[in-house]
Amino acid sequence: MSDIRFDFGGLHSAYAAGLPVSAMIETVFERIAEAADPGIFIHLADKTDLLAQAAALGPFDPVTKPLWGIPFAVKDNIDVAGMPTTAACAEYAYLPAEDATVVARLKAAGALVIGKTNLDQFATGLVGVRSPYPIPRNAIDAALVPGGSSSGSAVATARGIVSFALGTDTAGSGRIPAGLNNIVGLKPTVGALSAMGVVPACRTLDCISVFALTVDDAYAIFRVAAAKDEADAYSRPVAAPQIAALPPVLTIGVPAGSDLKFFGDDAMQAGFAAALSMLEKLGCKLAEIPFSDFYATANLLYEGAWVAERYAAIRDFMDANEAVMHPVTRQIIGGARKLSAADAFKGLYALQAYKAKLAPVIASVDLFCVPTAPTHYTVDAVLAEPIVTNSRLGTYTNFVNLLDMCGIAVPTGKRSDNLPMSVTLLGLAGRDALAASLARDLHAASSLTLGATGWPLPGQRSHARPPTEDGMIELVVVGAHLSGMPLNGQLKELDARFCRSAKTSTAYKLYALAGQSVPKPGLVRVENGGGMSIDVEVWRLGPEAFGRFVAAIPSPLGIGNIELDDGTSSKGFLAEPAGLTAATDISAYGGWRNFMAASGRNGLEP
Amino acid sequence: MSDIRFDFGGLHSAYAAGLPVSAMIETVFERIAEAADPGIFIHLADKTDLLAQAAALGPFDPVTKPLWGIPFAVKDNIDVAGMPTTAACAEYAYLPAEDATVVARLKAAGALVIGKTNLDQFATGLVGVRSPYPIPRNAIDAALVPGGSSSGSAVATARGIVSFALGTDTAGSGRIPAGLNNIVGLKPTVGALSAMGVVPACRTLDCISVFALTVDDAYAIFRVAAAKDEADAYSRPVAAPQIAALPPVLTIGVPAGSDLKFFGDDAMQAGFAAALSMLEKLGCKLAEIPFSDFYATANLLYEGAWVAERYAAIRDFMDANEAVMHPVTRQIIGGARKLSAADAFKGLYALQAYKAKLAPVIASVDLFCVPTAPTHYTVDAVLAEPIVTNSRLGTYTNFVNLLDMCGIAVPTGKRSDNLPMSVTLLGLAGRDALAASLARDLHAASSLTLGATGWPLPGQRSHARPPTEDGMIELVVVGAHLSGMPLNGQLKELDARFCRSAKTSTAYKLYALAGQSVPKPGLVRVENGGGMSIDVEVWRLGPEAFGRFVAAIPSPLGIGNIELDDGTSSKGFLAEPAGLTAATDISAYGGWRNFMAASGRNGLEP
Repeated sequence: MSDIRFDFGGLHSAYAAGLPVSAMIETVFERIAEAADPGIFIHLADKTDLLAQAAALGPFDPVTKPLWGIPFAVKDNIDVAGMPTTAACAEYAYLPAEDATVVARLKAAGALVIGKTNLDQFATGLVGVRSPYPIPRNAIDAALVPGGSSSGSAVATARGIVSFALGTDTAGSGRIPAGLNNIVGLKPTVGALSAMGVVPACRTLDCISVFALTVDDAYAIFRVAAAKDEADAYSRPVAAPQIAALPPVLTIGVPAGSDLKFFGDDAMQAGFAAALSMLEKLGCKLAEIPFSDFYATANLLYEGAWVAERYAAIRDFMDANEAVMHPVTRQIIGGARKLSAADAFKGLYALQAYKAKLAPVIASVDLFCVPTAPTHYTVDAVLAEPIVTNSRLGTYTNFVNLLDMCGIAVPTGKRSDNLPMSVTLLGLAGRDALAASLARDLHAASSLTLGATGWPLPGQRSHARPPTEDGMIELVVVGAHLSGMPLNGQLKELDARFCRSAKTSTAYKLYALAGQSVPKPGLVRVENGGGMSIDVEVWRLGPEAFGRFVAAIPSPLGIGNIELDDGTSSKGFLAEPAGLTAATDISAYGGWRNFMAASGRNGLEP
Repeated sequence: MSDIRFDFGGLHSAYAAGLPVSAMIETVFERIAEAADPGIFIHLADKTDLLAQAAALGPFDPVTKPLWGIPFAVKDNIDVAGMPTTAACAEYAYLPAEDATVVARLKAAGALVIGKTNLDQFATGLVGVRSPYPIPRNAIDAALVPGGSSSGSAVATARGIVSFALGTDTAGSGRIPAGLNNIVGLKPTVGALSAMGVVPACRTLDCISVFALTVDDAYAIFRVAAAKDEADAYSRPVAAPQIAALPPVLTIGVPAGSDLKFFGDDAMQAGFAAALSMLEKLGCKLAEIPFSDFYATANLLYEGAWVAERYAAIRDFMDANEAVMHPVTRQIIGGARKLSAADAFKGLYALQAYKAKLAPVIASVDLFCVPTAPTHYTVDAVLAEPIVTNSRLGTYTNFVNLLDMCGIAVPTGKRSDNLPMSVTLLGLAGRDALAASLARDLHAASSLTLGATGWPLPGQRSHARPPTEDGMIELVVVGAHLSGMPLNGQLKELDARFCRSAKTSTAYKLYALAGQSVPKPGLVRVENGGGMSIDVEVWRLGPEAFGRFVAAIPSPLGIGNIELDDGTSSKGFLAEPAGLTAATDISAYGGWRNFMAASGRNGLEP
């Protein structure tokens, strides 16, 4: 097959060297033909249409269009305008007029949709064989299941047919197929990526997920796609900072030895132990965590009330067309009909009890590391025992969205039998960047080639380092003292000079303080991820002016040291966390100016 | 009746002047007899037991026991050890061995349980007439309903039988009876007060609430009772700071004129307009807010899935004992049986949609002000039309817990017909202190007497005001800059002068920072209690010297504003909480000098 590498760096290097995007498109179709797997795509884009879209991108411009000319596939439960959405049920299909919000954002950044991929029907399954369409073949070993429910998306990525693919993940559908096909599967914090335009599985838990060949690529998609979407009530602002250098020591929770489950797969057990050794070599400290409550939480997903969400999503269709459904899917979702509203609330109470019990456990570590899947299954084994094998595959995935955690599945090497080994790093909601940062180092340590392509893992980008300082005092301002804002005059009266616009490191949160006559934000440094890079300005002033200025600052604000994104630090405004009662977290706006603009305010009135 | 005033200040003044607690207990029983209302209490404490409990309190000590000798009543859906819990259904009754968490906290602070009060059965209702026990009489006008479901608690408080009472509030049961009886009803942020030991109505929404004669009293109970409770999965940490002076200008959302509903009650309409004028006189800015989405949210509570929570709470009992239930209660809760689990999730989706739509609206103001109830109803009117009248009473209350808001109902005067006028201030979760602060000013402006007692509203405590400043800057030092400590020379080099020794307010924690070459502490202001008064020194220096000094302070230290125990505040050293990793909490030493002495160190070595 064509030797153009489809990881983002490889493809953009080729474009920069003159590769026409039409050649990329030809390569996509060559690779589809070479794969000879009719199970991957349910619908393919028309080549002529794709060439026209490519031409409309204009000249190569990865600055304004960071995904310029990057081909991707979309799981067929996510809308792409003009392509039917089937959810792997032809009788259910409809033709959407609009792109899903995430698809629209990716297209706007220059990415091109190659086609819609196969899945476990209605995204109900982790195996990839519950579809009326042909079963996609595992890209590493055709005897094995590809994993699901995002089977086609994972295989298309692993084969290098596309640079990345969108999946969805409610119970593990964005992680299991990544693990079984030697690629990266990023399962964002619930709500970080809009679910507008997705056929729901469980609306309270559904995530769009990203399959890619590298962590950098997966995380780049997360950064483009993540945004609060008014059209999705479950959407929420989640920090998507650049991946930063890791803190010196991370504590990684791992299931206590006796709680690890591999169902007799010794190669997976050995592969997991090897992955933990890699983490220790990277400077991580491992902490064994009892896992029985995580497993009990996982059981709620199919044994408890949440199956009723799957039924609620397709009730009208299912009640009228039950016979056309995949028999296993029909059996699972049909189980919801006997559940009452009181049962649903009992399920919610049970989940809340586990959440409360596990919250301090989850907060006691920086991230968790679990096997992505406990074992590999052959297609034959799954067809013989469809429910039990599926359930076992979800051992380390089913509890994750219920507990509001984010995760990223990453290859860590080959097992003793040459099958792919993968672990998943899990963290509190909002720790997507931290998880990706460690996943990148882990992937780099694996010395693997990408998916089933044979391409090497590209080199890692390096982090910026601090310059030195001069005599005047630099002051970082964040809110009402920014240029043009109502208190900026206080700086000018003190002969302060504007120095430069800047950004903080990703360790901060920004709050809109309540009850201020002049609207003001409060900046707070946070630990353990969850922070953002915030837009600031650096001003300079003499020591006396600085002294007078500091003396006049009202509570809860004060002057401390602020880390900037170039690694330097300067004096600047910080807020006391105790003063943030009733304040609103506006970190997602990335800065006070953005927030004020979004609020339609000029900063002059409360 | 005895003229001992039962507001906390009145009663504690009497104790300080020598009143024996036994006299208070006699007064309670005298007032119960004088009220001659068999509907208030379902169970009364034994007087001998009460006298024994009072004796066990020891000498009057309002410092270690802030509720020393304060009598209170408990709604009979909240457990008090040794008293039956009926939820106003004798057949349901059980005898709890343990106090509800909140009751235990109040008892530990010195409060005494007088009895268990009547309620709308299973806390289902806002009227106070849905009980098999006698209907409690409205304390202001016996022809009117007392309001519910916390009917007995409100009436006992309004009559001065107790100093305060606990209610519960799912749909408005902690606000409506307060409004109808001329008292304060504090409905905390959901989860701020543990619901452990409460018979659930809707577990996802239930709050324990506080009835009191004054805002200060209600908020004092909130401060004692609020705490995260491991035993209640819906419990969460909520700030309970001391009530502070209000910010200069608050923006108060009010229902747009065309959205106000009074069901023909012109006196209530005029009373509400008068209350809004009082807010404007207090310096608030009013903002009219369309209210149709708030009303639509409210409708979900009884028309949607949440009635299934009420059924889930008593399913076993109800399925076996339906005939003994109050007929209206049975009709309402029985409606849940036809709802499926899919219906429940559809309801959750509908709520989430309103939450997402209203979040920016709610965040656009500091607080809301609504009428507590849209009208007063007579007992006869409610008995004639039990469902419609109840529903109308919830106009301004039913949406509040669904939208995760806190609220406080406060009397604002008499209507033109002399019936009580009350408004409720509502805010985002966590704004309990802000709402109470404004409610206190509003109550003070009303010139009302308390409940039905004729007692005047006690004078407001004043807030400490900062003194005027001279040219020099006062700097509070906490650790290595104290006189004789290793970095004190830095101050002397800058010609700083020692001014005085001082103590911070009780809102601080002191930490020994880890990994410092010169040992240093970090001071942090904390919310929600748990702080200490810390020994400090105040130094003075000129602005330029101050500027140079601040510029040289290393992370995680900075300069903010420190509250002293005399109510003033000065510039001083604070630490970023994010810099306290591995630091040791040494607050208990009361200051750095004590800690260093106890450690046997002179401050010169790490």
